[in-house]
Amino acid sequence: MKLVRYGAPGAEKPGLIDADGNVRDLSGKIDDVAGAAIAPESLIALSSLDAAALPLVEGNPRLGPCVAGTGKFICIGLNYADHAEESGLAVPPEPVIFMKATSAICGPNDNLVIPRGSEKTDWEVELGVVIGKTAKYVSEEEALDYVAGYCTVHDVSERAFQIEHQGQWTKGKSADTFGPTGPWLVTKDEVADPQNLPMWLKVNGQTMQDGTTGTMVYGVAHLVSYLSRFMSLQPGDIISTGTPPGVGMGQKPPRYLKPGDVVELGIEGLGVQKQTCVADR
Amino acid sequence: MKLVRYGAPGAEKPGLIDADGNVRDLSGKIDDVAGAAIAPESLIALSSLDAAALPLVEGNPRLGPCVAGTGKFICIGLNYADHAEESGLAVPPEPVIFMKATSAICGPNDNLVIPRGSEKTDWEVELGVVIGKTAKYVSEEEALDYVAGYCTVHDVSERAFQIEHQGQWTKGKSADTFGPTGPWLVTKDEVADPQNLPMWLKVNGQTMQDGTTGTMVYGVAHLVSYLSRFMSLQPGDIISTGTPPGVGMGQKPPRYLKPGDVVELGIEGLGVQKQTCVADR
Repeated sequence: MKLVRYGAPGAEKPGLIDADGNVRDLSGKIDDVAGAAIAPESLIALSSLDAAALPLVEGNPRLGPCVAGTGKFICIGLNYADHAEESGLAVPPEPVIFMKATSAICGPNDNLVIPRGSEKTDWEVELGVVIGKTAKYVSEEEALDYVAGYCTVHDVSERAFQIEHQGQWTKGKSADTFGPTGPWLVTKDEVADPQNLPMWLKVNGQTMQDGTTGTMVYGVAHLVSYLSRFMSLQPGDIISTGTPPGVGMGQKPPRYLKPGDVVELGIEGLGVQKQTCVADR
Repeated sequence: MKLVRYGAPGAEKPGLIDADGNVRDLSGKIDDVAGAAIAPESLIALSSLDAAALPLVEGNPRLGPCVAGTGKFICIGLNYADHAEESGLAVPPEPVIFMKATSAICGPNDNLVIPRGSEKTDWEVELGVVIGKTAKYVSEEEALDYVAGYCTVHDVSERAFQIEHQGQWTKGKSADTFGPTGPWLVTKDEVADPQNLPMWLKVNGQTMQDGTTGTMVYGVAHLVSYLSRFMSLQPGDIISTGTPPGVGMGQKPPRYLKPGDVVELGIEGLGVQKQTCVADR
């Protein structure tokens, strides 16, 4: 099942994608793609609905972030060996975690707003893991029981803010629109193996990242278990699991986003995002 | 005005403290101490209410965190010169910022739950700044216009999780109950100078921290302005502004919290917290 949130920013309604790729309205069934509605049992009940019997959403509505009520947007640093290498950093012996401001979350195709004073806005395609029920001290074996599903996340990063203005990384990860999420929350039953998903990112049509979650250092089950030792995870929380090689900072010379650039990114089975970069005036 | 949230966890109602120190019910006036209700104009309207005419809350209710709907719990590191020194670190040339999980937020007198595997749970009394309206690229001169008020925050910190398990600090700051907040949200009209507030913390009756916000390196107005360059700040967001000397890690030898310990802390005019430490079983 592919869940979406469609409509104007802040007024999105829940929906799902039917077999023909159309949006069907779910607002008669659930309040939002959030909280108890994305618990594993709720998702099983939703999946038994006849999509063709739900109201068809006409036209081509804007898609919002695919999950609402996100209390924590947790990111994993340096979680692809090749990306650590291009960053000039060693693969960490335990996951590196930092937070992205939840106010950075936006729709998958919203404009990417380059912050005032930014000269090093960079891209990172990442696999997002959406938590479906509260997880605390869960083992790696049971960790996926707490996952609602997966989505494409763009972990937009301002490298000067992140690295050149004192710690910590959250400073370069949190500007408004730095967290496009979606288009879909794909329930985990549709993702046979989260550690075997091709992923890619293009800038102005040129492929910059071309990787796979297969080269992730710490996999999804390990991350959910690991994080749950340090904080409780709640429904709607997003874990963004790190990026493969090919970010702008790693180019020779480095290359960063400027107004007018178009970024497209996707993960197999999880859908594609497309953002146009604009200046923050 | 001293705003509170009282009642069982997750079901708190809004209230205020009257001239006699009693809780008066505000639920007929506002839905919660959150969002639009803590905008500067809303607070002015609330302050014109006759507290004595509001329903008296009988008994001695539990107090919850003094503000709800917190999207970001932003902390400032090493923001007191003496604390940086006891940590063996230099005062940073720009504010160090990190996030605490919002799921760590709890009431001011709730039990402090020491996480499983923790041997270095430490204390930090801090001045909390509560945002009242959206702030983005605001100048230092106008920054306080965006502040609803102040509160006492306990930035509980697990030093091994924070420092010995790879980055970043958020890992040691985010366990459940690691963010007692309140008892009161004191509106800024009652705080003549946020940079001149005595603050203290005791463990089992022994004074461990005895400082003042007067020795803060980066003051409240600077922090609000600075942060608003990197992320937008929303109503209910909390900025915890750093701690003065006297944390457990700085003792010789270091001293940490154990089950049964009682922590009391307060900031002049902002009220007192008291937590009993318990093990997470």
